[in-house]
Amino acid sequence: MTGAGAGDHARAAPYSGSRLHRLRPVPEAIPIIGGTGALGYGLALRWALAGRAVVLGSRDAERATEAAKKLSDAVPDAEIEGLSNEEAAKQGPIVVLAVPFRAQSENLTNLKGSLEPGQLLVDCTVPLAAAVSGKATRTLGVWQGSAAQQAQEMVPDGVTVVAAFHTVGAPDLADREVILDEDVLICGEKKSDKARVAALVEAIPGLRAVNAGPLETARIVEQLTPLLISINVRYKVHAGIRITGLPDTDHWE
Amino acid sequence: MTGAGAGDHARAAPYSGSRLHRLRPVPEAIPIIGGTGALGYGLALRWALAGRAVVLGSRDAERATEAAKKLSDAVPDAEIEGLSNEEAAKQGPIVVLAVPFRAQSENLTNLKGSLEPGQLLVDCTVPLAAAVSGKATRTLGVWQGSAAQQAQEMVPDGVTVVAAFHTVGAPDLADREVILDEDVLICGEKKSDKARVAALVEAIPGLRAVNAGPLETARIVEQLTPLLISINVRYKVHAGIRITGLPDTDHWE
Repeated sequence: MTGAGAGDHARAAPYSGSRLHRLRPVPEAIPIIGGTGALGYGLALRWALAGRAVVLGSRDAERATEAAKKLSDAVPDAEIEGLSNEEAAKQGPIVVLAVPFRAQSENLTNLKGSLEPGQLLVDCTVPLAAAVSGKATRTLGVWQGSAAQQAQEMVPDGVTVVAAFHTVGAPDLADREVILDEDVLICGEKKSDKARVAALVEAIPGLRAVNAGPLETARIVEQLTPLLISINVRYKVHAGIRITGLPDTDHWE
Repeated sequence: MTGAGAGDHARAAPYSGSRLHRLRPVPEAIPIIGGTGALGYGLALRWALAGRAVVLGSRDAERATEAAKKLSDAVPDAEIEGLSNEEAAKQGPIVVLAVPFRAQSENLTNLKGSLEPGQLLVDCTVPLAAAVSGKATRTLGVWQGSAAQQAQEMVPDGVTVVAAFHTVGAPDLADREVILDEDVLICGEKKSDKARVAALVEAIPGLRAVNAGPLETARIVEQLTPLLISINVRYKVHAGIRITGLPDTDHWE
């Protein structure tokens, strides 16, 4: 078997994590597409503080490197890297897509050669009407039903989309002095996939992961962002969501 | 001026509450259209327990009377009446519409002769797909944007719709042993109208009223019901909503 043949075979097989393990054995790094943006950087800071390795992706590798340096200065003992989005997406089994709706489709097109079967893509996209100069308290209709379902349509075969992190405010994430105390609603087809994303959510102190239903439920959860923006405007706060009445036990096991 | 002329004048003027005050001086009664249904009866129970006068409306006046008797037995010192929906709607300045989406339009048509300028209509309707044998975790698209906006289109001139009570579960309301601890999101054009509805919400111990934005925001808030139903199915609970990060102070003043 030639080297090229082996490579083809590797690309067709389920994601083995081998590329990751070449770079860093444990723990698995968390690649963040759009890691220099407000939400992406905020999540990166929280995961870095929680001791997780983070790979900041950006359209511009140089900007990614700069953001990684800034984050390293903020969390000196953290394992942080800055790469182009395409390279970042190869660095871990669960890839976080934290880009504005305006850029979601372009990013997913660019990632077609980077994502591999077996990877999970955590879509955080909210189709705010602000993407087309509309209000941030309104959303655009997405033909597939939600930005997350659009993402599922666009990723390579074998890549699974899970939707999460719509309701956690970037300013609160980015301010390490803010004590988080809210829920993250997770939508996806398989509970086992959602449980893996839930572990990432709950690696951040103060966040609880709630199983909100199948991926189609993202069309509701994505609407929570404009709802919270509407409340933020009225109360001059950074509001979040809590689901009441849930059992105290960990239901993700 | 003839008696008929005076009557015409009274119908054109803003709702004076005179009809109400003829019946019961204080406090203002709360008419509930669909008061024999699960949500309507649950709200009635909680308001009765809070010492508020309640008028249960039903398509069938006899059923309304029966439900009123049942509620009177449950809360012996409460002021409770059962009437046809059309008569019930005349008994107070803030009328609660608690009917299934399937029946919303028909009810509003029937109330055209009962509602008067100056009254508020609190719409609790959620356009669940269950109305057309679909899933309770999905909704129907409403041309006006939301059931509440459809209601605003259908009520007589001068009647104002405020949307509320979408996320409070009927079983929890109807079980007086359940201690409520959740938010009610209120949508409407004017803060002063929403504040009046907020006072009704917060008359029920354990409920906090949150100003969610203008009436169009009901298109998001109505989606919270299928979201909570999806969560209820997964966790076998009666889930509710809390908005985190709000100030402790009363912002409705």
